Amino acid sequence: MSEHIYKKVELVGSSTKGTDDAIRNAIARASQTLTHLDWFEVVDTRGHIEDGKVAHFQVTLRVGFRLEG
Amino acid sequence: MSEHIYKKVELVGSSTKGTDDAIRNAIARASQTLTHLDWFEVVDTRGHIEDGKVAHFQVTLRVGFRLEG
Amino acid sequence: MSEHIYKKVELVGSSTKGTDDAIRNAIARASQTLTHLDWFEVVDTRGHIEDGKVAHFQVTLRVGFRLEG
Amino acid sequence: MSEHIYKKVELVGSSTKGTDDAIRNAIARASQTLTHLDWFEVVDTRGHIEDGKVAHFQVTLRVGFRLEG
Amino acid sequence: MSEHIYKKVELVGSSTKGTDDAIRNAIARASQTLTHLDWFEVVDTRGHIEDGKVAHFQVTLRVGFRLEG
Amino acid sequence: MSEHIYKKVELVGSSTKGTDDAIRNAIARASQTLTHLDWFEVVDTRGHIEDGKVAHFQVTLRVGFRLEG
Amino acid sequence: MSEHIYKKVELVGSSTKGTDDAIRNAIARASQTLTHLDWFEVVDTRGHIEDGKVAHFQVTLRVGFRLEG
Amino acid sequence: MSEHIYKKVELVGSSTKGTDDAIRNAIARASQTLTHLDWFEVVDTRGHIEDGKVAHFQVTLRVGFRLEG
Amino acid sequence: MSEHIYKKVELVGSSTKGTDDAIRNAIARASQTLTHLDWFEVVDTRGHIEDGKVAHFQVTLRVGFRLEG
Amino acid sequence: MSEHIYKKVELVGSSTKGTDDAIRNAIARASQTLTHLDWFEVVDTRGHIEDGKVAHFQVTLRVGFRLEG
Amino acid sequence: MSEHIYKKVELVGSSTKGTDDAIRNAIARASQTLTHLDWFEVVDTRGHIEDGKVAHFQVTLRVGFRLEG
Amino acid sequence: MSEHIYKKVELVGSSTKGTDDAIRNAIARASQTLTHLDWFEVVDTRGHIEDGKVAHFQVTLRVGFRLEG
Repeated sequence: MSEHIYKKVELVGSSTKGTDDAIRNAIARASQTLTHLDWFEVVDTRGHIEDGKVAHFQVTLRVGFRLEG
Repeated sequence: MSEHIYKKVELVGSSTKGTDDAIRNAIARASQTLTHLDWFEVVDTRGHIEDGKVAHFQVTLRVGFRLEG
Repeated sequence: MSEHIYKKVELVGSSTKGTDDAIRNAIARASQTLTHLDWFEVVDTRGHIEDGKVAHFQVTLRVGFRLEG
Repeated sequence: MSEHIYKKVELVGSSTKGTDDAIRNAIARASQTLTHLDWFEVVDTRGHIEDGKVAHFQVTLRVGFRLEG
Repeated sequence: MSEHIYKKVELVGSSTKGTDDAIRNAIARASQTLTHLDWFEVVDTRGHIEDGKVAHFQVTLRVGFRLEG
Repeated sequence: MSEHIYKKVELVGSSTKGTDDAIRNAIARASQTLTHLDWFEVVDTRGHIEDGKVAHFQVTLRVGFRLEG
Repeated sequence: MSEHIYKKVELVGSSTKGTDDAIRNAIARASQTLTHLDWFEVVDTRGHIEDGKVAHFQVTLRVGFRLEG
Repeated sequence: MSEHIYKKVELVGSSTKGTDDAIRNAIARASQTLTHLDWFEVVDTRGHIEDGKVAHFQVTLRVGFRLEG
Repeated sequence: MSEHIYKKVELVGSSTKGTDDAIRNAIARASQTLTHLDWFEVVDTRGHIEDGKVAHFQVTLRVGFRLEG
Repeated sequence: MSEHIYKKVELVGSSTKGTDDAIRNAIARASQTLTHLDWFEVVDTRGHIEDGKVAHFQVTLRVGFRLEG
Repeated sequence: MSEHIYKKVELVGSSTKGTDDAIRNAIARASQTLTHLDWFEVVDTRGHIEDGKVAHFQVTLRVGFRLEG
Repeated sequence: MSEHIYKKVELVGSSTKGTDDAIRNAIARASQTLTHLDWFEVVDTRGHIEDGKVAHFQVTLRVGFRLEG
């Protein structure tokens, strides 16, 4: 019972507001198709610049979820 | 024929017994849904502690399998 | 609209010709089953040797594609 | 006088609000028992997910403080 | 035409408000002297502590911009 | 309540039996002086050789424990 | 005389043909404005995908050149 | 006398039993041709999968030995 | 029988033609003095620049070969 | 008896003279409060610049010491 | 006022005397053309060998300096 | 002629005097048995502590030398 197996998928969330919001957007999208989401790990943070300003923050994360038996 | 393409998935196996067993558990679970499993690479090793003892070893691995043509 | 979410999968392409060709082979295979492929990142380059010569170049890449809303 | 010696400790701060707040929480806790706190370095950022949403942001940091002569 | 060449410069932005703001400050400063700014990558996040509180967040980023032909 | 702060300490456990046992030895020693031990992460694995045989396995780990409020 | 000082700049070359060509393009561009170019180091290799095919290979390199006394 | 010089060689040991055994096998083989073996460092752990089970564990290690004066 | 031991050596191949050719040159040279060459792993890619052009590509690789029982 | 447990602490030594001296300063300070100091590992080397000259070398090290049974 | 922006440049200093001197040489050269130099970080240390002896130590450093508002 | 092949070996030099001297000791020892030594790269720096003082500095380096045709 305690010997769960987890899978991780790598996602890139983006947001015009900031890095936390980019993380939340990626998790929200993942939860549409995956269940038992358990944790995330930030892999890197990047972003696009337009007209000399940050247009989007982009955060790459690995999201772990439990596989059913 | 020799130009195979492989995919890797990232799994976390856990075991109360030890790290080798956690690896074997993850491979056993992967083989339920994937075929042509070919190799694994250990990414990191962690674990949970309860009452001052190792409760579970957790091994993250990347598992490679051949994609069919 | 600009707040797209992307997923990355990790593939290993191989080729008897060279590293660029191994990359192209992996992308070609990925495009059979995935749409909205957007970019790739080389993770590592390896290969097999037979009779003292390079038999296959193998390039591991992460391929990013846009998830539909 | 200028040849100060510093020590670093590794802390994990958590917050339901965001990553900056998790950093501030860890520093606040460290300042309860350590003096001469001087700088921090973010080591990694993770978090827990509950019900398909970020439940806590967790930021691991190394905090440097000056040792008294 | 599609074979653009880019240069990256490494900057450290700081802010009393938070990490996103430190990124924006660095980009704003870069756009004073560089044109065709295209993307940024966060290299690391640090900060200074004063009186047991975060005084400044400091984010190191690499900023990429297109070189004119 | 959910915004716990954790500290990590870095330990090296050793064992003549194997790597899992070296991990257990380090955790057992840590639990003599620390409470609320929660998780460990393996940092690296090394060992000493005597007379052409492994004399000790040595595993470096970071052990995380919750700080009391 | 033998105690030269060098500077490195980070460039991203791109090419529709392949990775070697992307390297050559970046060096060619650098030599328009810099003299005493001496060596390069590949930092990473990426690329864009269009219509399921590699549209551009992009190679990030650090280029070292000698500073005049 | 205390200023010894050491050399490291990189070996890959394999075992059907587990990772510790793969390490021991590599050390045993090294001791056939090298003397003054002193320590080892695990570089990475991989393995082959056959019929959905771990067929061999493979551990890459660097083995250090003292060079004679 | 299946518990082979491998050794890795680190080589730098160079070529005026390109990175794949530099790899092949290193393997060809290694096969003059080593048998049972099995695989290679690219460690890094560098090169020398002369007169504003790539003079040599240099690829560092680790080459693995099976040790005889 | 041979199954010792070690702890590592992370220190930053500084010196106006040079990197070796910064290491020695950190060790000297550590030995005021810790016993059984056994080894150190350099983590990184930095320094401050004043008036266009190196004002202090700063070396971050991990210092390992044996814990008493 | 406290929200300064810094830029880092990557330099390689060399010296026949030693690594500290190579660092000092790089800083001295940088201070000829840059003002507000603030800190340096050692990236790697290499060197050339001639006639079986170290001919030059070469230290790569990143040098940070404050950009004027 | 320009397409030389190099081999790298990994050595650990030690010295009671300092890190530069440990490097020189390793190179001196290597030149007893190897010819065409060309460059070295520092991999890491460690040391032993006795009686609360640095007893030996130990520097791991990779030494590159040209293989004869």
